[in-house]
Amino acid sequence: MKIRPEGEVSRRQLLQMGLATTAATLVPAGVESLFPPQALAQGQDPLPSWNDGVAKQAILNFVRVTTSSSSGHFVPPAERVACFDQDGTTWVEQPMYTQVVFCLNRVPAVVKAKPELANVEPFKTVMSGDRAAIAKLPTADLYKILGATLTGMTVDIFRDQVQQWITTARDPRWKKPFTELTYQPMLEVMSYLRANGYRTYFVTGGGQDFVRAYCDKAYGVPVEQVVGTMGGITFSYNASGKPILTKDPKLLLNNDNAGKPEGIHLMIGRIPHAAFGNSIGDRQMLEYTKSGDGERLAMLVIHDDKDREYGYGPALGLPASKIGTFTQALYDEAKAKGWPVISMKKDWKRIFAFET
Amino acid sequence: MKIRPEGEVSRRQLLQMGLATTAATLVPAGVESLFPPQALAQGQDPLPSWNDGVAKQAILNFVRVTTSSSSGHFVPPAERVACFDQDGTTWVEQPMYTQVVFCLNRVPAVVKAKPELANVEPFKTVMSGDRAAIAKLPTADLYKILGATLTGMTVDIFRDQVQQWITTARDPRWKKPFTELTYQPMLEVMSYLRANGYRTYFVTGGGQDFVRAYCDKAYGVPVEQVVGTMGGITFSYNASGKPILTKDPKLLLNNDNAGKPEGIHLMIGRIPHAAFGNSIGDRQMLEYTKSGDGERLAMLVIHDDKDREYGYGPALGLPASKIGTFTQALYDEAKAKGWPVISMKKDWKRIFAFET
Repeated sequence: MKIRPEGEVSRRQLLQMGLATTAATLVPAGVESLFPPQALAQGQDPLPSWNDGVAKQAILNFVRVTTSSSSGHFVPPAERVACFDQDGTTWVEQPMYTQVVFCLNRVPAVVKAKPELANVEPFKTVMSGDRAAIAKLPTADLYKILGATLTGMTVDIFRDQVQQWITTARDPRWKKPFTELTYQPMLEVMSYLRANGYRTYFVTGGGQDFVRAYCDKAYGVPVEQVVGTMGGITFSYNASGKPILTKDPKLLLNNDNAGKPEGIHLMIGRIPHAAFGNSIGDRQMLEYTKSGDGERLAMLVIHDDKDREYGYGPALGLPASKIGTFTQALYDEAKAKGWPVISMKKDWKRIFAFET
Repeated sequence: MKIRPEGEVSRRQLLQMGLATTAATLVPAGVESLFPPQALAQGQDPLPSWNDGVAKQAILNFVRVTTSSSSGHFVPPAERVACFDQDGTTWVEQPMYTQVVFCLNRVPAVVKAKPELANVEPFKTVMSGDRAAIAKLPTADLYKILGATLTGMTVDIFRDQVQQWITTARDPRWKKPFTELTYQPMLEVMSYLRANGYRTYFVTGGGQDFVRAYCDKAYGVPVEQVVGTMGGITFSYNASGKPILTKDPKLLLNNDNAGKPEGIHLMIGRIPHAAFGNSIGDRQMLEYTKSGDGERLAMLVIHDDKDREYGYGPALGLPASKIGTFTQALYDEAKAKGWPVISMKKDWKRIFAFET
């Protein structure tokens, strides 16, 4: 790296240090036209895994309009917030949420630590390895498993457990780490927004501490930018008198549905300028995003590519009973309100980085 | 402003845009000695309102050590978090917390909207204007007033109420807006830390939404960096179908005492590298901060200057019964553990910016 005179840093250095913003965000209103948005100025396509179309143009247009003071919809850098659902929006959520796989995989260790659970349901069924029986476990049993595997330990031990698991666990279809099943086109959107001064947040129904364990490495999202389902935390001292924080089996906020805008207010305190979701659990977040003044972007990812990923969203010509009426309702709302819909099949050139 | 070639920004531009960091934080390990910490490099004292002494040197040393890769205690920019208590640490908390003054001042409007409260305690006493009687209201009555004035409205209306009030309300002693009763030396510490890549957070027992209404203007702290006492938030739609968020009379987290490290984990997810407090409510935050590895700074502001501010902290030679045994206990802990104590009388050249 070339050493520059003290006090000057190149954009490349800024980008490398995660402090990237466009020149347009660093200069006062009026002169930004000298500094067109970052990726375009370099003549590079900032979204190379996207086919040209309404969805891609909506993203490019949103960034252009909100970072150009002459557009009339300029958003000051401090207010640039973009929120992403995770499961089904930035990585695969089929056949089971990754966090649920983690919880099931943790059961043997929990039973080893508490052998009396071996003959207690639902732990007995999970230990049997009978996939069909496990898939049929009722919701109440699932919550028992979540409680036993997501709470009761310190936040440090939990983070270590997740980080160790996620480097070794493999998805059943692609036989790859879950962190490689992130959608390359969405990673490009996140990078593009960050390069233009947006802070990218996860707003996920998943556990906040779970997502924090890998969000930086897998997505470039720092831990403080994860708004997730929050459990209680209890401060105490260990036997050596050192402060520790323990995860409680108490729900503070179910960060799904109406909980998403509630969590956004608690954790961020601003209405996002952009939000991306894929299911009915994202409805209120998308509506809340669009409730802000000026230019706001709400987008919906549709799972309509059963060959390259999974086909379970609306708009597949399937009867409502096959796709879930609630997701269909959100799709219909998006269409009615003009929110750009992202078709995985039509809009994405490739879905995963490992595709050739 | 001189227009530089695209892709280059000067440090001054960075500073002006609030994206300041030292050059030392922007270059890889090994070359940082070419870029000594920001303020010192310019030959300016970054803490001009501080007298030289142990407290000032502790702050300067902390920044030097954690931003110099050769120190062995370099902290990557993404991990630089500094937490500040507000009441009594960055602004005056006597004779009453500012938020409590706001709540009392809001009572007439609440009674006007609900006239049936005029003859109901504690509203009747507050409406009487009898200061002595108001000061004697029991805690349960105070909570009724907090509930009636801090909840039940949308987050937007509440923010507007606080912002309107705080521009007009005056402190009884100095007859100045409360936002001018911020401690100039602490504002300098916050700016100095930010100029060196630290994100400065409030970690306050005060209401999160209350502090968010003025934190940016008064302290340069953005709304997402306020960890405060959190109430429930409910998402719904107004009569026009627009999403709204309403403040509930439900406590999610009492961000005081053990609640401070719990709130830090929920909102930030990192152990701070520096924390500043002044009362027993800050004890666990300071202990938690020191529990992290490497260089960590925990500092305690002592109110020992009754002429320029108030004298109510420990170390005044007063009997414990006069100063509160719990605050004395924290002072003793700080001394025993070597946490630098800040004497307002000895360490601060001036307390307020309006002093000549």
